[in-house]
Amino acid sequence: MTINQYYGKNAVYAQAGGATAMLNTSAAGVIQAWQQHAPSDAVLYAAHEGILGVLAERLFDVTHLAEHKLQGLAQSPSAAFGTCRHVLQPNEAQRLVDVLRAHDIGYFFYNGGGGAARACQDVLAVAVQFSYPLNAIHIPKTIDNDLPATDCSIGFGSAAKYLATSLREASLDLASVASSSSKVFILETMGRYSGWLTLACGLAFQHDTKQAYLLLLPELPFDEQRFLDRVEQTIETYGYCVVAVAEGVVDSQGKTLHASGLQDAAGDRQLGGIAPMLAALISSKLGHKCHWSVADYLQRSARHLASLVDSEQALATGKAAVTLALQGRINFSPIIQRLADNPYQWQIQPVPLVEVAAPERRVPLEFLTVDGWQLSEAGRAYLLPLIQGQAPVVFEEGLPLYPQLNLPFVVKKLAEFEVVI
Amino acid sequence: MTINQYYGKNAVYAQAGGATAMLNTSAAGVIQAWQQHAPSDAVLYAAHEGILGVLAERLFDVTHLAEHKLQGLAQSPSAAFGTCRHVLQPNEAQRLVDVLRAHDIGYFFYNGGGGAARACQDVLAVAVQFSYPLNAIHIPKTIDNDLPATDCSIGFGSAAKYLATSLREASLDLASVASSSSKVFILETMGRYSGWLTLACGLAFQHDTKQAYLLLLPELPFDEQRFLDRVEQTIETYGYCVVAVAEGVVDSQGKTLHASGLQDAAGDRQLGGIAPMLAALISSKLGHKCHWSVADYLQRSARHLASLVDSEQALATGKAAVTLALQGRINFSPIIQRLADNPYQWQIQPVPLVEVAAPERRVPLEFLTVDGWQLSEAGRAYLLPLIQGQAPVVFEEGLPLYPQLNLPFVVKKLAEFEVVI
Repeated sequence: MTINQYYGKNAVYAQAGGATAMLNTSAAGVIQAWQQHAPSDAVLYAAHEGILGVLAERLFDVTHLAEHKLQGLAQSPSAAFGTCRHVLQPNEAQRLVDVLRAHDIGYFFYNGGGGAARACQDVLAVAVQFSYPLNAIHIPKTIDNDLPATDCSIGFGSAAKYLATSLREASLDLASVASSSSKVFILETMGRYSGWLTLACGLAFQHDTKQAYLLLLPELPFDEQRFLDRVEQTIETYGYCVVAVAEGVVDSQGKTLHASGLQDAAGDRQLGGIAPMLAALISSKLGHKCHWSVADYLQRSARHLASLVDSEQALATGKAAVTLALQGRINFSPIIQRLADNPYQWQIQPVPLVEVAAPERRVPLEFLTVDGWQLSEAGRAYLLPLIQGQAPVVFEEGLPLYPQLNLPFVVKKLAEFEVVI
Repeated sequence: MTINQYYGKNAVYAQAGGATAMLNTSAAGVIQAWQQHAPSDAVLYAAHEGILGVLAERLFDVTHLAEHKLQGLAQSPSAAFGTCRHVLQPNEAQRLVDVLRAHDIGYFFYNGGGGAARACQDVLAVAVQFSYPLNAIHIPKTIDNDLPATDCSIGFGSAAKYLATSLREASLDLASVASSSSKVFILETMGRYSGWLTLACGLAFQHDTKQAYLLLLPELPFDEQRFLDRVEQTIETYGYCVVAVAEGVVDSQGKTLHASGLQDAAGDRQLGGIAPMLAALISSKLGHKCHWSVADYLQRSARHLASLVDSEQALATGKAAVTLALQGRINFSPIIQRLADNPYQWQIQPVPLVEVAAPERRVPLEFLTVDGWQLSEAGRAYLLPLIQGQAPVVFEEGLPLYPQLNLPFVVKKLAEFEVVI
C-alpha cells in the first residue's frame, strides 16, 4: 500500500506573489517531471492566478503540453498562469475542498515566496479540517531572497545579475560626466524587509575599479547626516558617488523613509520612490546634481539577462517537487542547500513547510563591510555563484521572444464562486 | 599640393553630451582608422572630458592603442575619455588655438549630438578667426535620435532595443498580477524635446500580443482627461494598461508636466519624474494601483543588450570620419543614409556641419497611429532595422566585462588654464 492510494491522482500547480524571470522555468520543471513520472491517466492542472484560480475553478490542463511549448515557457519571464497574493478566507474553505475533490486533486504545488509557503500551510489546514487527503508542496521563489531554510531563492540570482550589471553600466556613465555635471547616481531596488537585492548591487564594483559606492539596506537604520557625510566623502575621493537603496529602508524609529517625513528641497512631502527623495536631499543639502533610477518591475522580469545557475535551480526545484511528491514525500519545500562556494556546489533538500513559512531571512551584517556601506568579501563569496552563466534566450526581430501559452480553461464541474479580493 | 600640407598633422578626438552604449565603439573606429591610414608620425590624441580637456590640455595619446584594448573599448558603454556639454566661451578662443597649435592638431573630431555639432561650428569659427587651419568633424551620436540630416543617431538603436525589451518584460509582469493588484505600469524614458525613445517602446508589443499600451511623446500635448479616459478604456478592454512616457511631455501651453502644476493625490507638488506623477494621478482619479519605473542612465548605458546594427554603424561612422578627413573632406559629419527598410540597407554620407547643427528632428506624426496613442506600421518599419542583432559582450564572473583604459595624460606644453564650468 503506497501513499498514492490515499491521495487523489491529479495535481494542481499555481504561482503566487511577484513574478520573476525564473518562475516559469520552475513551472516547466514541474510539468516535465509530471509528464515523466506521474501515472499516465493523472492530470496536471495549472491554476489561473494562484489560489484564486483554484477557488474560481479556472484551471488549465497542462498534462500534455508539447516540448516546444515547455521550452518557450521555461524561457519566458513573469508568471504564465497569473499570480496573486490572496490569503485564504474561512468562507472559502468548503469551496477549496469542493474544487480539489471535483478534480480528484491529491497534490497542491504552490510556487512562491513566504506568502505562498504560509498559503500552503493554510490550504493544508483546510484539507485536514475537512479530512481531505492532500499533499501540499511549496516551490521556493522570490527575488527578495528572504525565504528562510534555503540558501537562496529562485529568481534572486537573475535579479541580482541584472541589478549589478545595470549599476556597473550606470556607474561608468556617471563617471564620464561627473566633473562638469551630475555627481551622484541613485538606483532604487526592491526589498521591503531585506536588502539582498541592494547588497547584490555591490557586485557592480570589481576589486580593480573605484569603490565609489554605498549601499542602503533595510537592515541598517538610515541616518541622514551620516549618509550625507559619506556621499560627500565619496565624491571628494573619487569625483562621484553611486548609491544603491532598498525601497524598504527605515529610519532609527523603524519607519520607512516614505513615512518618516523626509522632505525634498521645496519642503514638500515626496510621494515617489526613495531614490528621488534621496536625490532631492543630496541636491538641497550638498548642492550636487543627481540622477536616479527606479528599476521596479524591470529587475524582476529581466529574463534577457538571467543567471544560468538560477535557471538550473528553477528547473531542478520544479522537477524535485514532483518527483519527491510522487515518491511519497508530503508537505515539504525542495530548497537549495549550498555545499561549496568555489567551485560552487549545491543540492536540493526537502524541508517541512513550517521551515520556509518562518519569518524573513535578512542580510547578515558580515555580508557588509564593517562600516556597513559596502559589500564584504563574505557577501561577495555568497553572491557570486548565484549570478554565473547566461540563461539562454531566443531573439526574434531584435527582441527576446517570450511565447504565450493562450490555453483554454478546462470545463468547470462546479457552480460559479465569487472570490472577494 | 594636398590639403594635408595646410593642416597640422595630428588629430584630437573628443566625446560630448550624454554617454551611450555605442559612443566608445565610434571611438574605437576613429582610432583603428587613424592607425591604418594616417601618416606614421601623426599623433591621435583623445581629450579628457570633451572640449574641456582640449582647453585644459588634458590629452591622452591613443595613436598606438593595442588591438585588444581597442576591442575592450568598442565593447564598453559610457564615454571612456569623459564627456561634457561645455559651450565655448569668448575668453577661451585664444587658449583653444594655443593648444591646437602646441600639439600641431589639424583635425578636431567631436563625437556627440546636436550640442557637439554646434560646438564643432564654434571651434571652427574660432580657428577661422585666428587663421588657424582646422578640419572640424562631427561624429553623430545621441540616444535621443533627434539629430537632423541623419536617418538615425548612433546609440539610439541600442537604447531602443533596451527599452522595448524592458517594457515587453515588465508588461508580462503586469499582466500576471493585474486582476488582483496593480493594473498600470508606467515606464519613463529620456527625451526632452523628442519622443523617439518612447516611440520605440511600442516595439514591445507584437502584432499577436495584447495592444494594452499607450505612448506619451513630447510631440503631442498632454491632455489629462483624454489620457485618463484612454487608460480606463485600455484596462476595461485588456485588464491592464502599460504607459511609456517621455520625460519631456508638455501640456497644452507647452510647459513640461513638472512645471504645469499637476498634483499628486495629496495635493502636493511632485518633484520626482513624470512617471510617479502620472502614477499618482491615475491612482487618485481612477483608483488603480500603479507601478512605475524610471530608466534614466540605465537606458543609455545598457551595453549588455545593445543592437548589432547600431554597433556596426558606430564603428563605421568613426572610421569614415577619419578616412574621409584624411582624404581631404573638411567640416562635415558622416551621417547614416537609409537605402531600404527590408532588407535594411544603409550607407554613410558626409554632410556639411550646418546640416547636423540644425534644430532637433522630432517624431513625424505618421509614426504614430491616427489616434496618437500607439506605434504605427510606418513607425515600426522605421525602427525595426535599428534594433537588429546582438552586439557581442564579454562576461567575466557572471557580469559584463567593461575594461577601463587608465591611460596617462601626455606631458603638457602650455601653462595651466582654468576653465569656468
